[in-house]
Amino acid sequence: MPIAITSLQNSRVKDVIKLAKHSERDQRRVTVVEGIRECTHALAAGIVPVEAYLCPTLFDSEEQQFVQQLYRLEAEHRTLLMEVTPEVFAKIAYRGDSGGILLVIPYLNHQLSDFELSAPAFIAVIEGVEKPGNLGAILRTADAAGVQAVIVTAGVTDIHNPNVIRASLGALFTLPVFESPFEATLAWLAARQIQIIAASPEATRSYTEIDYAPPTAIVMGSEAHGLGPGWRGAATALVKIPMFGAMDSLNLSTSTALLLYEVIRQRRQ
Amino acid sequence: MPIAITSLQNSRVKDVIKLAKHSERDQRRVTVVEGIRECTHALAAGIVPVEAYLCPTLFDSEEQQFVQQLYRLEAEHRTLLMEVTPEVFAKIAYRGDSGGILLVIPYLNHQLSDFELSAPAFIAVIEGVEKPGNLGAILRTADAAGVQAVIVTAGVTDIHNPNVIRASLGALFTLPVFESPFEATLAWLAARQIQIIAASPEATRSYTEIDYAPPTAIVMGSEAHGLGPGWRGAATALVKIPMFGAMDSLNLSTSTALLLYEVIRQRRQ
Repeated sequence: MPIAITSLQNSRVKDVIKLAKHSERDQRRVTVVEGIRECTHALAAGIVPVEAYLCPTLFDSEEQQFVQQLYRLEAEHRTLLMEVTPEVFAKIAYRGDSGGILLVIPYLNHQLSDFELSAPAFIAVIEGVEKPGNLGAILRTADAAGVQAVIVTAGVTDIHNPNVIRASLGALFTLPVFESPFEATLAWLAARQIQIIAASPEATRSYTEIDYAPPTAIVMGSEAHGLGPGWRGAATALVKIPMFGAMDSLNLSTSTALLLYEVIRQRRQ
Repeated sequence: MPIAITSLQNSRVKDVIKLAKHSERDQRRVTVVEGIRECTHALAAGIVPVEAYLCPTLFDSEEQQFVQQLYRLEAEHRTLLMEVTPEVFAKIAYRGDSGGILLVIPYLNHQLSDFELSAPAFIAVIEGVEKPGNLGAILRTADAAGVQAVIVTAGVTDIHNPNVIRASLGALFTLPVFESPFEATLAWLAARQIQIIAASPEATRSYTEIDYAPPTAIVMGSEAHGLGPGWRGAATALVKIPMFGAMDSLNLSTSTALLLYEVIRQRRQ
């Protein structure tokens, strides 16, 4: 049976609210998932929530069905269920539309060294991404494009930020996402003879002029600063996206999508 | 000399605040532009602001330089300048980062019937777009891709929404954007023998299997409902974007970017 929580002063409620802070998430190594799609992908990936906060009056039929999985996890003593009032749920929810389910899940713990590639390699590397919405959008596109893994280097935003999970629609759980420093990432790619195709507005070649049949990592820089000197120096090729109008840049997640789907286009022909 | 405004109760201040409402914008046929990039593109496009609200204490060097253009317009009695206090500016500004310049500009008045195409035609049609951020992002990408015109049919969001202007980074002013009903748009395309390539997840052909050398309109449906039966029936071809992961859709602006840049890729080879 779920624990009933009706008070905004409840210490568990206060602890969930604190998870809005990056430092608090890092210290406790847990984060928050809301939204039926996102929660469904998390459980499908084998993630076992530490806690689940349920507000049945907000449930739709999808949520009704989904919570059966949570009841099973509770019966196995793996997830602690809390049933909360709409007032309490409004206080802990990050989103207005999360349908009455909020999960507290442990941090993902993917290790790049454990990851086994299939051939031909197709990796996305994102350096220094700043906006959680952009990182989430990139994960969503990377999943759709069939990217095997996303590696985040020098991330300003952390991959467990609830806004990343939201913007990814849960793709954070459907494909391996690694946080890894530049040097370790470079060594990992080099050991596997993966060509590094890095986007840079100053490049002379278009992204469509590259042969993506070989094992490939697409490397993207940050929104404000672009690609750092490390990746520039390490790149097999620098490529640009041609632009013909008055705008001097594309959105980071748009640029990433164009490069990822060019790999797909070539490999499927 | 600008008119000094220090009171939050000033009637002009109240009138600007009211422009947050779509109905108010439509009635007065003016909208609001903020941000140095956006304002610069607006003036470069020949738009003459009706009013400009300036808060010099918020200016950076870019804004310092930009306001010279506004002073010239004031000298010609074409734009009314108001100098406001930081408190007043905070009240009228939609954004926290708009740098102390807010323009009230007349609605754009592009008529599709007046528009002259160059060959080969490259048009984007967006039906029923709901989120201003998506429409703005599409305009930004369409500008970059060298699209000749964007036509918005059955728009749920209006093209003059300040969030469209913001997300477009001002691309609303750098390329022709038309609001036009379905039938008129279809007739216009047909009269010019422009092939209609429409995105639909149920299509059997990939967007990369189409020949985009002929005059082309890329047609995209809304975020939630996709393409309506009108465009489905009228399309020369329905195309899909192949997806290989757990996600069942891409973001609308991402999908649009992939189709637009495939046209570019083929035409440049």
